[in-house]
Order: sequence, then C-alpha cells, then structure tokens
Amino acid sequence: MAVYTEVSDEDLGAFVAEYDLGNVVAFKGIAEGVENSNYLLQMESATYILTLYEKRVAQEDLPFFLGLMEHLAARGIPCPTPIHGRDGQALRKLCGKPAAIVTFLQGMWPRRVLPDHCRLLGSAMAAMHLAGEDFPMSRPNDLGPKGWEALFATCVERADSVRDGLALEIRGELDLLHKSWPTDLPTGIVHADLFPDNVFFLGEGLSGLIDFYFACNDFFAYELAVCLNAWCFEADGSFNITKAGQMIAAYRTMRPLGEKEIAALPTLARGAAMRFLLTRLYDWLNQPQGALVRPKDPLEFLRRLRFHKNVKSADAYGIA
Amino acid sequence: MAVYTEVSDEDLGAFVAEYDLGNVVAFKGIAEGVENSNYLLQMESATYILTLYEKRVAQEDLPFFLGLMEHLAARGIPCPTPIHGRDGQALRKLCGKPAAIVTFLQGMWPRRVLPDHCRLLGSAMAAMHLAGEDFPMSRPNDLGPKGWEALFATCVERADSVRDGLALEIRGELDLLHKSWPTDLPTGIVHADLFPDNVFFLGEGLSGLIDFYFACNDFFAYELAVCLNAWCFEADGSFNITKAGQMIAAYRTMRPLGEKEIAALPTLARGAAMRFLLTRLYDWLNQPQGALVRPKDPLEFLRRLRFHKNVKSADAYGIA
Repeated sequence: MAVYTEVSDEDLGAFVAEYDLGNVVAFKGIAEGVENSNYLLQMESATYILTLYEKRVAQEDLPFFLGLMEHLAARGIPCPTPIHGRDGQALRKLCGKPAAIVTFLQGMWPRRVLPDHCRLLGSAMAAMHLAGEDFPMSRPNDLGPKGWEALFATCVERADSVRDGLALEIRGELDLLHKSWPTDLPTGIVHADLFPDNVFFLGEGLSGLIDFYFACNDFFAYELAVCLNAWCFEADGSFNITKAGQMIAAYRTMRPLGEKEIAALPTLARGAAMRFLLTRLYDWLNQPQGALVRPKDPLEFLRRLRFHKNVKSADAYGIA
Repeated sequence: MAVYTEVSDEDLGAFVAEYDLGNVVAFKGIAEGVENSNYLLQMESATYILTLYEKRVAQEDLPFFLGLMEHLAARGIPCPTPIHGRDGQALRKLCGKPAAIVTFLQGMWPRRVLPDHCRLLGSAMAAMHLAGEDFPMSRPNDLGPKGWEALFATCVERADSVRDGLALEIRGELDLLHKSWPTDLPTGIVHADLFPDNVFFLGEGLSGLIDFYFACNDFFAYELAVCLNAWCFEADGSFNITKAGQMIAAYRTMRPLGEKEIAALPTLARGAAMRFLLTRLYDWLNQPQGALVRPKDPLEFLRRLRFHKNVKSADAYGIA
C-alpha cells in the first residue's frame, strides 16, 4: 500500500503526450503494491495503470520485466501489457524515475482463498511457465540460496530481538537447505511472487497475473513451492491439503511434473518459506522512519517453514 | 492516503447485490482521503466510489452529508451523487461500518495551483452556496470557535513540544478571535474543507467537488476564508494576491459579498488558519501507533495565521 511519488499535472501531461491515448480523464493513486507507486490512469481511450519504479526495483532489470509481460501477454497469459509511446518505447522517465503505462486488468484478488482459486492458479501458473519458454532474456533469482545468506548476514545480529533463538534456528535451516537444495530440476521463467494479491479473479475465472517485478529464471517447481506457502495455509496456521492438491493437480494437467520435481517439493517449500521469512525479517528490522507501509509479520513464515520441515514427502501436499 | 478496512469478496458481493449495478469488475483501494476508506468500484454499468465511514466521521451526521451531496448534485453542482439500493437506501453497512456508493467524478485535483484554478473555484463555491440555500437539514460547525477551545484544551500541555511558545501564542490568538469573531454575517451550507485535493479539474473546467464530510452551516464568507488559506499561499509561505483576487472576484459574480462580509475577511481568515493549525496540531500530537498516515505540519498554518494577523483590510486579498 504505497504511493511514494506525487506527480504534478504538468509532468503527467507531458508524459502522456508521448502516447496515442488521448487526454487524461482521471488519475488516482492506488493503495496496493509495496515496491512501486501505482496510479489508476483513466484516459479517453481506456483505463491503464501507470507505474513509477521506486528505488527498490533495479533499473537495469526493467527491460526484462516489461519485455516478459509483453511476451507473456502476446501468448495469451492474462498479464499487464506495456503500452508503447509514439517513439516505440514502453519505458520512459516521469518525475526523474523510470515509469511505464500498462493495460488495466479487470478482476479482484481473493481476500479469502478458496480451493477453486488454487485450482485456477495451478493451471494459469503452468500456462505461464510454458509461455515463458521461448522468452529470450534471463535474470537470476536474487532471492535464491545465495541471496538468503546475504539477507541473513544483514539481520543476524538483531534477529533475536524479533524472537529468542531465531538467529540460530535460521542458521541451522540455511545449512540444511544448502546441503539439500536441488540442482538439476527443469528451469525457466517464474513469477516468484505469486501471492493472492498478485492474482485477479473475475466471475468463474482467473483474469490476471500482475506484479512481475521478482520474475527470474529458477526451477518451475520452486514457483509451486512458493504458492504452497502463499495460498495453502489458513489464518490459524493450518495447512489446507485440499487447496494444495487442487493447485498441483491443475498444474500437472498443463505441464507434467517429473519425479525429481515432486520429490524436491518439501525442500523447495522450506526454501520458499525461508525466502519470505528473511525478506520480511529484513523489512521488519529496517522500517524506514515515517514509513507508510506496515511491515508484515516475519514469524508467519517461520511457522510455515517448520511445517514443511516436518513433511515426510510431497504426499503431504495432496499429490494424488 | 488510507485504506483502513479490508473488504472480503463475500462481503462485497453481498453488498453490491443490494443495488441494480450489475457485477463487480474491479475493486481497488484508493490512496486518497484520510478520514475514510475509499475504493474504486468498477461495475458492469459504470465506475463508482465505495466509501466506508471510519470512526472519525460521526454516524449520526451521515444522513446530512449524503443528503447534502444528493441535494447539490440535483441542482447541478458537480459533486458525488449517492446511489440508492433497491430498498431506496443510500446508506448501509459493510464490514460492520456505515458505507455508501457514490458516483465517480472525472478530473484531477491540482498538484500545483494556478490562478485559473482559483477563479474556477470561486464561482463553483458561490454556486454551491446558492444551491444549498433550500437544503432542509442543518449541522453546526464542530470546528468553529467553541471547537477550537476544546481542541486546544487537549493540546495545550504538549503544544510547546512542537514549537517553543506555541501554547501562549495560540491562547492569545484565541482570545482575540473570540472578541472579534463576527456574529451577523450571511449563513448557509458550507463545505468547510475545500482544499485543492477536494477539487477536481478537467480540461478548462472544474469537474468536481468532493469530500463533504466537514460540511456544516456557517458564514458563507468563512468558506472563502478557508480557501484563502488553502489555495493562495505558495510553498515558500508567500501569499499570492493574484490567486486570492481572482477567487473572490469570481465568487462575487455569482453571489455578491456584503460590506460586512468583506470587512470580516481578515478575522475569518485568521480563524480558518487557527482551525487547521489546531486540527493539525492535534493529529501531530496524537499519531496512532503504526499509523499509515503521515501527519501534516501544523506550523504551516501558524505562519498563515501570522500573515492574516498583519493584514490591515481585505484589500490585502486582492479585492478590486
């Protein structure tokens, strides 16, 4: 929930004049998205989203993210499509920051996740993985095992202020994860942050996947592992095996999972829980003065990590 | 900038089912408005604003505010029109809070105020004052001279923590204002919070007046005094007499100002500055733990108050 940059009338007018979209009819900051400033931009032609990329997104990665959205949208994946200006460029500057206009997607993200959402997500995720296979650019996952170490190093000294013994528990888990992390699973473009607030539904269908600013090359099965964490735990901490089973089954109808991928799921799910535990811990310990964003509880993912630690095999995820 | 209440899919679905607006197409929290939670509600029929009234707005005042918007809109004032449900009600409950759907107004509030904005505001303000004359309900101004004393009483002990000597300066000003405050000026419905972010412009015209949740019965000229404070000071603290002159002149083309109203303007402007100084001081001293709203600087209005204190007559406001 954040609008960081106040855009003046003159700046906005000059910016949209670079496009063939007509005049601005309305412009409102949206209280969603933590990384960037997002605005609803209603033009005479249609409604769009204008995004200003704040410093947390690396500028050199923007051509990858925008190129990926365009690639996926052209292959029928319901994701925002970058709009090109008259000069052919989709990425330009506004208020001194990189900015882009993308199409507006209808639908709402589910405040309460139902098994049907997980089923629809599973097939959309697999379709996205397949559609990304011929995308020519690549980007490493900064928040993979090496990234966890770097994040942990910045948090280790103050981790126990959040919970007694946390530093030691994370250290032990990281050591285990480094030993058990798979190396030879099918790899491709993954979204890497498919939480419910990044997936829109409308009527009986899935209408949009948004916020590709963590997208990278990684194991396809790691994406499933992220989604097991993000979609299948209830508010009381319990794991909903029905949701997980439907998500994985729907995924497999579009893209079969190999035996190694299935066997690796518990480890990947532990790693995914570690990734969100560490970024949340970092955000918790580094709240900027006067921040408008309330950080999320890191310990939620410690509990999820412990769940996956006790999982004996991928059967616990409802694999039929 | 605030969305306080997270609305679930089921709650929203049940709520909109009370209206003849079709199905929900999109629903997004808007990063504007401090008092209430505002959402952009895109329905099959059109786009609306859904407002949840948080505790700062008194529930018993809501029929006044909604009735006023409906009254003004019916008389051609460009303000949000409450939408009635099938049961005839415009005000109902959502997530346990009062809630209403109103029409969506096109346009943008000016990030940089130009003299033309002030001119357009002046005539729209007068038109609104005239259109409100036959509105049958009334509501006292809680933030008039009596309200200032109540607010000051809650701030007096900590006021000097914001600025040395502030408590004494406010006390002296309040005493002067009580002595000089007019009693017999033309009175009617005023918006009472016509800051730039509550006024939309589109193309060459004024397209909307929003946020009527401070509206009340008070001197018409007090509204002008609020707007002198809200629209005519530059970022460096200087007063822009061109903007003020255009605003007042445009107002007078629609509703003539009496001699007493003109003579009272410096006192009313001091009072208006006091009102915003005190509410900002209160908000500054009472920031809720973990608040998502950054309070505005109260001392901005101390400087404006001092400007009006040194004004000899309404000539200083560019009255021709």
